[in-house]
Amino acid sequence: MFITLEGPEGSGKTTAIKYAVSKLKEMGYEIVQTREPGGTPISEQIRDVILSKENTDMDGRTEALLYAASRRQHLVEKIWPALKEGKIVICDRYLDSSLAYQGHARGLGEKAILDINLFATEDTYPDLTILFDIDPEIGMKRINDNTDREVNRLDLEQMEFHKTVRNAFLEISKEYPDRYVVIDASRPLEIVEKEVLDIILKRL
Amino acid sequence: MFITLEGPEGSGKTTAIKYAVSKLKEMGYEIVQTREPGGTPISEQIRDVILSKENTDMDGRTEALLYAASRRQHLVEKIWPALKEGKIVICDRYLDSSLAYQGHARGLGEKAILDINLFATEDTYPDLTILFDIDPEIGMKRINDNTDREVNRLDLEQMEFHKTVRNAFLEISKEYPDRYVVIDASRPLEIVEKEVLDIILKRL
Repeated sequence: MFITLEGPEGSGKTTAIKYAVSKLKEMGYEIVQTREPGGTPISEQIRDVILSKENTDMDGRTEALLYAASRRQHLVEKIWPALKEGKIVICDRYLDSSLAYQGHARGLGEKAILDINLFATEDTYPDLTILFDIDPEIGMKRINDNTDREVNRLDLEQMEFHKTVRNAFLEISKEYPDRYVVIDASRPLEIVEKEVLDIILKRL
Repeated sequence: MFITLEGPEGSGKTTAIKYAVSKLKEMGYEIVQTREPGGTPISEQIRDVILSKENTDMDGRTEALLYAASRRQHLVEKIWPALKEGKIVICDRYLDSSLAYQGHARGLGEKAILDINLFATEDTYPDLTILFDIDPEIGMKRINDNTDREVNRLDLEQMEFHKTVRNAFLEISKEYPDRYVVIDASRPLEIVEKEVLDIILKRL
């Protein structure tokens, strides 16, 4: 089973999934928890190019192609092998992040971004996508309050961009109702993390 | 005017174009001679990932997406600005190299590779493409005899791969007869370089 976590910056998805992973492991499930670039050396190198603060001249289409390339390598080296072994793969961000960020917020078009990502993924969609929905004003405040996490190039984009991203995710969730569950990520962590576990258990 | 040079490894295109560029400059033409990644920092970083000898686990689709990303950035930062200023841009390898190497030799399909490259280039085809056709046995021998040029990962591929590439280029040249001129690059340099100049002058 292939599960993806999506949502704007600061939606707390990385923190909230920890509880579900720990409980699922206690129940005996084999979990591979990953995030792009997934620790594969080639994907890491690609991500370094994307996120470098020096690369401010990067064109939106270049960025979209690099994300697709990194995603491809992560699938080939990590996600597909784990799924073949019957493990549950939980991936923090995947295809839909490109649809929201590059397709909508950067204005490149959801269809064009989907096409290059279907080339990259050979039509590998997640079985379940949990959208951590949150007002970006709250999300960005969370990031700025968190001194452990380095602010990257994407964080520095304007608030308007993040609002577009939020609306894009909500729109995409309606296009794929079968695999999408939207949760209100502005609530306290204890509530969100239990809801995430419940959603996953219902699908297993 | 946008001119691209294509051909298998060791076809001598880089050497042969020098004469034409020098003569065209004498005639007063403004020439921008470039090759992917074109000296743009982002494209260079992407090329480093592609050509690193350590990245032997790179999947064919990852490679194709990276070439498209590097091409995009090169277009945006260097080729389009020069074309807008009315200059002649001569680019050593472009779109067709991806069609031949990834589409044909790596078996990913010419149509799929064309699609991601049309996304990358926004349908920017060259006005003229000169194909330096050569038997790969001769081409690879030239590379091995040339101690100035470091042998890279692509050079190490099997000879069969290079033969497929040669045939792919010949096939692609027939699909785009209006922009393609095929020359026999196994002849002495003095003949090839004069023919290249003639071909360009006829199109100007």
